[in-house]
Order: sequence, then structure tokens, then C-alpha cells
Amino acid sequence: MNRGVDLNCDMGESFGAWTMGSDAEMLDIVSSANVACGFHAGDPLVMAETLQQARRRGVAVGAHPGFLDLWGFGRRQIRGDSPADIERMIAYQIGALMGVAALVGSAVTHVKAHGALSNMAAVEMDLALAIARAVKGVEPGLIFVVMPGNCLERAGEAEGLRLAREVFADRTYDDDGNLTPRKQPGAVIHDAALAAGRVLEMVQDGAIRATSGKRIPVRIDTICVHGDNPAAVAMARAVRGTLEGAGIAIRPMRELVA
Amino acid sequence: MNRGVDLNCDMGESFGAWTMGSDAEMLDIVSSANVACGFHAGDPLVMAETLQQARRRGVAVGAHPGFLDLWGFGRRQIRGDSPADIERMIAYQIGALMGVAALVGSAVTHVKAHGALSNMAAVEMDLALAIARAVKGVEPGLIFVVMPGNCLERAGEAEGLRLAREVFADRTYDDDGNLTPRKQPGAVIHDAALAAGRVLEMVQDGAIRATSGKRIPVRIDTICVHGDNPAAVAMARAVRGTLEGAGIAIRPMRELVA
Amino acid sequence: MNRGVDLNCDMGESFGAWTMGSDAEMLDIVSSANVACGFHAGDPLVMAETLQQARRRGVAVGAHPGFLDLWGFGRRQIRGDSPADIERMIAYQIGALMGVAALVGSAVTHVKAHGALSNMAAVEMDLALAIARAVKGVEPGLIFVVMPGNCLERAGEAEGLRLAREVFADRTYDDDGNLTPRKQPGAVIHDAALAAGRVLEMVQDGAIRATSGKRIPVRIDTICVHGDNPAAVAMARAVRGTLEGAGIAIRPMRELVA
Amino acid sequence: MNRGVDLNCDMGESFGAWTMGSDAEMLDIVSSANVACGFHAGDPLVMAETLQQARRRGVAVGAHPGFLDLWGFGRRQIRGDSPADIERMIAYQIGALMGVAALVGSAVTHVKAHGALSNMAAVEMDLALAIARAVKGVEPGLIFVVMPGNCLERAGEAEGLRLAREVFADRTYDDDGNLTPRKQPGAVIHDAALAAGRVLEMVQDGAIRATSGKRIPVRIDTICVHGDNPAAVAMARAVRGTLEGAGIAIRPMRELVA
Repeated sequence: MNRGVDLNCDMGESFGAWTMGSDAEMLDIVSSANVACGFHAGDPLVMAETLQQARRRGVAVGAHPGFLDLWGFGRRQIRGDSPADIERMIAYQIGALMGVAALVGSAVTHVKAHGALSNMAAVEMDLALAIARAVKGVEPGLIFVVMPGNCLERAGEAEGLRLAREVFADRTYDDDGNLTPRKQPGAVIHDAALAAGRVLEMVQDGAIRATSGKRIPVRIDTICVHGDNPAAVAMARAVRGTLEGAGIAIRPMRELVA
Repeated sequence: MNRGVDLNCDMGESFGAWTMGSDAEMLDIVSSANVACGFHAGDPLVMAETLQQARRRGVAVGAHPGFLDLWGFGRRQIRGDSPADIERMIAYQIGALMGVAALVGSAVTHVKAHGALSNMAAVEMDLALAIARAVKGVEPGLIFVVMPGNCLERAGEAEGLRLAREVFADRTYDDDGNLTPRKQPGAVIHDAALAAGRVLEMVQDGAIRATSGKRIPVRIDTICVHGDNPAAVAMARAVRGTLEGAGIAIRPMRELVA
Repeated sequence: MNRGVDLNCDMGESFGAWTMGSDAEMLDIVSSANVACGFHAGDPLVMAETLQQARRRGVAVGAHPGFLDLWGFGRRQIRGDSPADIERMIAYQIGALMGVAALVGSAVTHVKAHGALSNMAAVEMDLALAIARAVKGVEPGLIFVVMPGNCLERAGEAEGLRLAREVFADRTYDDDGNLTPRKQPGAVIHDAALAAGRVLEMVQDGAIRATSGKRIPVRIDTICVHGDNPAAVAMARAVRGTLEGAGIAIRPMRELVA
Repeated sequence: MNRGVDLNCDMGESFGAWTMGSDAEMLDIVSSANVACGFHAGDPLVMAETLQQARRRGVAVGAHPGFLDLWGFGRRQIRGDSPADIERMIAYQIGALMGVAALVGSAVTHVKAHGALSNMAAVEMDLALAIARAVKGVEPGLIFVVMPGNCLERAGEAEGLRLAREVFADRTYDDDGNLTPRKQPGAVIHDAALAAGRVLEMVQDGAIRATSGKRIPVRIDTICVHGDNPAAVAMARAVRGTLEGAGIAIRPMRELVA
């Protein structure tokens, strides 16, 4: 009997007059929304709106902090901040979302780092620990979303955080459990049915399947899906449908993580 | 037997490589610091540093939210946001400071609106109510710092907030209890001893003394002082010295406000 | 024999990862593009891209400066800057676009103020003069796009600028030649054929036709159309088609303005 | 008979309500001011003010473009922009300064890259070429300030730009003509007389003197001095005094560079 799995998606990435993503559609598909906190995207109005819509549909909300870089959407590496600086900028963003959440009667349940900050922390332990300390410092009960095997997972373990281990619906893995680089042919899966089938296999098997066929056992708590474009939305819907069709419940991560 | 009074000062208004104010000196004088939240001044690093220094000296900290306008330092009126928008941007800023405060083991006790936002809300009830609702929505126990008689006080009362009523050490008042306009001669007091004497009289008497001599009874919980320049610091020091010399204790507002 | 008329549209209002408007389609319709300069929208990359695309299609480009307010898209009034401050922020934006234009082998031909700044300057002569002085100061040969009858036109005349007088395809006018307020029923025209017919009448007649039927003679150099949504694009296309069908050439304003 | 040398200093690095540097004092010492363009510091008001003051004292002005990073003052490396992106953001900044310069009746004579952007371009040829192309694209007559021997010099040569070769008054050099790393003891010179003597020797000798004593012949067009603090101002004054005392005229780089 499967305990179920969470589906998470980045949301609230509009800013002022500019809109991004298919948040309304995605909120009908996922069980957790990672909400941008105003540094790489999002603003107090977008955040409040996203939290309210998520609340209406019973979708859990988490903070999705990134570099202060609206122009680069948090996708550019910014080098020069100390780990203590990173801690503070993460705490600021989580707190900001908690403030807006309190205002609209919602509550923040998790944290997932965004973009370049996440990519850097995946391989730089001092950054990963800084993010983990920020999460713990602001609210030790928050769930920390991490990719199994990288620095963020180890940092979360070191800080004793509740961890939600994540796999990607649209990416392939190498024998070390890392994502195959985007430029490598086949690294990104575009076929919705293929992605859904792979996700089902991973969740049922409790393991990542590398491109070589190698089986890497991991505890899978949440599946990352995207809402950037109609094809992504369709893939997310296929993932959910396939999982539910196989009797696997879609549940917010807080029901799955100790 | 006097219950004492709070001294408050705006702080944490540096940004990145730019510094502003004499925060270290002022933290030895005041009992409450109003900390900029990154919208008109301040950044996560400055906020953390300010909170840590305040904590070491037993100074209470509050949020000092303003318009998102670093260039204008929150002093320019920005028109076009709905009251609901204002609520959200205030909640964001209070939450952000609470996040940083949690990280450094501190706690936010009060909120005081900044600059043009405060000036607009002083005379526009819908804005004042929006700010009060934001305070209440984020944390109903927060103290709301207001000027007696203006819209912010009435909004705070309407929302049932804990209120700290404030007078200014360096400004004179008209018969309605409003500040005399800055451009009017004598509106701003530059003499430290004069300011300190006036503050003592107001606190002992429980009343504002207008320039006409009229006595306006008000409950005075906190005195606003400044740290912008050496003369302001000297005035703040004189105010504290004069109050303590007269047996009036300087205490954080949370000990004074029900 | 009609001298022709210009069609202008605001463009380059994307920012970083966020896109806005149907610039590619609109560049096939209009003869002049007003390009955002990074303050309310646009960034150096978007600006360069917009200028290059405009150049390929022979569309003239102008600066579209606004308030420094990405969050509010330049639509919020910001009060507190002196006319001299306004001059400088306009000169900065025009210069920035000229710099990017030089880089891509293009040239800036005109200036049209954006959003709240334009609305404020339409009725505040000191602001209007500040904008006109900035245009003249940066490059006296630049054409200044104005609405006939308001402060911007008078300021442009006072500074001796080349003026392009503009009417709106989708708005109605009152007896004073001002736009009827948006909230008034019928103030905004949504029917493409109706808009196109009105524009043709105004251009052929050399006059604005008020809602009362009153005829207000004006020199019409350019028609403002929009590309915000598919209906707006369709209306712009209809306006162009109707004008050309009546033998009125669509020509960049520099060919029309002395 | 010595042709003279230029003294250059970064200026206009205030922003809104925040001030930085001793610009007024430095304008009495240097012959060239490198003016921040609003990306890492500076704003249209500060830029105009700086240009006006420079003009009154006959100090030449140049653009000092950097990364869009007010918070980090352009000192943080930002990775992810293509060379074409860099070109555009540099062109934007140079153009912006030229716009403000035109407004105040001044003219931009040179360009010197700032902070992390400059440091990255010093060792990354594609970035250095991007900056050089931007300078050339905006105005081929602009002088490009470079450190002899690094990528920026080679890029400037490749693009056929007028080059001003710069040495630092307060830094020591290794045998390759590179600055010794700041963390190395003695890398930064704090003694004004020592710095002034070294500068005089380098200018008279037409060579950099490495810490090992090795002589590296270079054409020295300009000396970089700083105005960050009183000691820096004093050093700059000593450098000027020592040079003039030895009969070496302080002249703007445009009089020195072909």
C-alpha cells in the first residue's frame, strides 16, 4: 500500500503588470506550490493572490527564495555573498511570505531554493548549509525540499530539518543520481506519457532509474512539475492522472514527511 | 509616580555599500528601534546587523515599512495602489523583518509606518485602515505606533490594536495637535535643551503644548528622536538625560502599552 | 492630396524573462515604435531587440520614458521630484536608448512620455516643460509626441520642439479636445471597424470629432494604436487598412513634421 | 620633456538619499572623473550634479558602467549574460550618461569598466571584447581606460579604440604586470608619500616597477586614485603634488591619447 506522493510546482512568478505561468491550471493539478518571494519574481500582490488561490484549492504553499535579481529571474549566478549573507536573504524571503500568508489566513509549509542559488548550493556545501540554517532559524518545522544526493540534502540532514526528497518529471538522471546536463540529447523529456510512466515507475519502485538502466534507491516524497507552457501543464496533468490511475494518492508533503 | 516613556528612532536605513545614520550611538540612547524593511531602505544584511546590535543592548525592535522606493527613500508619494495592495506590501515587510528577527533570535514588537506612506495615511482613512489591517493580520499582538489625533490612531483603534502614541522631540504642534508645517518658521526645533525641556513638560503633564500655549491632553507612550546627524544624536541624548534626571524611566513601549 | 499619417505604438515593454505585447505583429502595422527605456519596462536586451526588429521593417523608433517604477509599470503617480529631477531622469532614458540605438545601427527619432508621467505632465505645466527641456537638451532635433491642447503641446511649442500631434484610435473626446474619462461608458472604443472609421474621418477632416458632434480642428500627425492583446492588434490592423484603402499613406512622423 | 599624465577617480557613486565619496574634494585633484551610470551606483540626479561640478572645474568625465546590482555595488560577479547582453548593458549605460551630459552641456570623453565586471573582463576575452564593442558601437571616439597587459587592453586594441593605459597609485605589481592580490601583505599601499613617490618613478621611467624590482615598460596615460575616505583623498593630493612638483603636468587623458 503506497503512502502517496506530493506534486510540486513553482508559482507566483508574475511581477507587477507581467504575468508568467499557468498558475490557475497548475493549482488544480499539484498538491504543493512553491511561491516566489519577490527577489527573483513575485511581489506582495502576486504572493497574496497565489496564496489565496492555493488555499481555496487545498494546495500547500512553500517559499521559493532566490537571488535578488528580477532582471535575470534568479537564473544568473551572483558570487560574492558570504554564507551569513545568504542566510539572511533567505530568512528575509521566507519571513516575507509568512507575513503575507498570515494576512490571507494561510500558512507556509515548506521551502525550496530557486534557480541559480539552488544550483550553486547543490554543489557548494557552505551555501547549502546557509540555506538550511535560514530555514531552521526562521521556523524549524518547515519542510526543506531537496534533490536526493546533493549538498542541499546533506545540509538539511546536518541541520536536522524535515526533508522532502524530490525527483523531476521531465529530466533524466545519470548513474550518480544527478540530472543529466540539459545540453545532452534526451536530458529533457518532452513527451507527457513518457514522463508520466517514468514517474510512476520511480514512485512505485522507490528508486531513480538512471539512463544507463541503473537503479538508485531513494525515498521519493515529491515530484517537480512545471507550468511554464501548455505542454508542461499537459505533462503535469498526465503525471497526476497516471499516478492516481495506479492508486497512488497525491498528497501535500507535510502528510508524507516525518 | 510616572510610568516612564519610550524613546524611538528610525534605524537600519543603510543599504548595501551605503551607510546612513548613527545607529550604534542611537542604540545607547533609545529603547525602541524602527527598522527599515528593504523597501525604502535597509536590506537583509543591514536588518540582521541592526537587530543583533539592538538585542545586545536590550533595545526593542519594530518594523518601519514604507513604499518600494529606494531611490526616493520612501519620501515620495506613490499613488495608484488600492488599500488591499497597501495591506499586502506592509504585511510583506513586517514578515520579512520577523523572518530575519527569528534568524538572529530577536522578536519584532511594533510597527511604525515610514515617510510618505505614513504622511498619506495620516490623512487618508482608507490607507490608515489598510496599514492597521496588515499589522493585525500578520500578528495581532504587535504595537502600532501612531500620532495622537490622526487617521492612523483612529485606524488602530478601529482594528483593536495595541497603540503607542507618539510625540516628536523636535517639532512644534498647532491647536489641533498636528505638527506645524516644516516650512513655517520655528516648526523644527534645533536646540537640544529646548527640545528636551519641552519633551519633559509634555510627558510630565500628559499633554501636548501647542505653539499658542493651548494644552492638548494625550497619552504619551513614546518620543520620536532622530540619528541623522551629530546634532540630532546630541538632542536625543539630551532628551534621555533630561527625562531620566527628572525620574522618568526610559522603557520599551511593550512595557507601557496594554 | 493627403500628406499621410503616422501610426505609433508603445513597444519593448517586456522585461527580463517576462514578455508583454505583440511587438512582432505590431511592427508590421505601425510606422513608429515608442520604446520603453528601462524605467517602467524594457531592459537593454529588450531595447536592442526591439530596435533591431524595427530597423529591419523600416519602423521609426522613439524613446518612451516613464517613472522609475517597474513594479507599477510607470502607471502610478510618483510625487516629490522637482522639475529639474524630471528633466534628468528623462534625459537619462533618452540617452540610454540612443546608446543602444547607436550600438545596433539605429537612430532615435522621437520621444513620447509614458503612463502616469505623461498624464501628470498633460495637466501640470512645470512637468511638461521639464520633459520638453530634457528632449531639447539631449537632442533638439527629436520630435516630441503630444496630444493637441494639453500642457505637453504647449511646453513643446514653448521650447521650439518639432511636434507630432497625436490622436487615439480607441478613445473618444469631449468638447475641449480632452479624452473622455475611462470610467465613462463608451469612453474606450472596442469595435475595430468603428475605431478605424473614426480615425479615417479625423484624418481626412483634419479635426477631432467630440462625442457631442463638435468639430475641433487639429493637425493630426500620428495615430496611437495598441498591441496589448489580439483585439488591439486587430484594431490597429483595421485602422491601417482603412487609412490605406482611402489613399492615406502610413509614413513615419519624421516625414510629416517640419 | 614629459607630456604629462592624467589622474582619474571613480565618482558619482551616491544614490538617492545615500552619499558616498568625497567628490567635491577629488574634483580639485583629478583631471578625469569616471561617473557611475545608475547600474551599480549613481542616478540621473547624481550624474547630472557630478557632471556639472566636473565641468565647472575643467575635469573630463567618462562613463563607469557596471553590473546592474545596486545592492552589491557592482562588486559581485554576475554570471549568465552572453557577450551580446554585456554589450547592450554597457551601451545603455554609456548612452544614459551621454544623455545627461548633453542636458547639462557636458561631453563624455572616456569609458572605464567598474568592479566585478572589470575584474571578470580583465581575464575573460569574450567579455573584454563585448565591452570594447559597446564603446566603439556607441561612439568610436571614446577613450577606453585599460590596465596594460590584461584582456581589456587587448580587446581595445583589437577594436581599434583609443586607449588610456592606467596604473594604480595604491597597489603593487607582480612580475607579469598584474596587481598583487589584495590579501597578500603589502599589496595595498596606505602611505601617501610612498604611493606618490612610486607613481612619480613609474611616470618618469615609463615603466611599472614590480615588487621584485623588475622593470616592466608601459605607456602610462593615467593614474587611478580614490576618494573613498580622508586618507585616500590625502594620498591623491600627494600624488598630484609630487607629480606637479617634478614638472609633470596633470592633463585630461584626451590630451594625451592619440
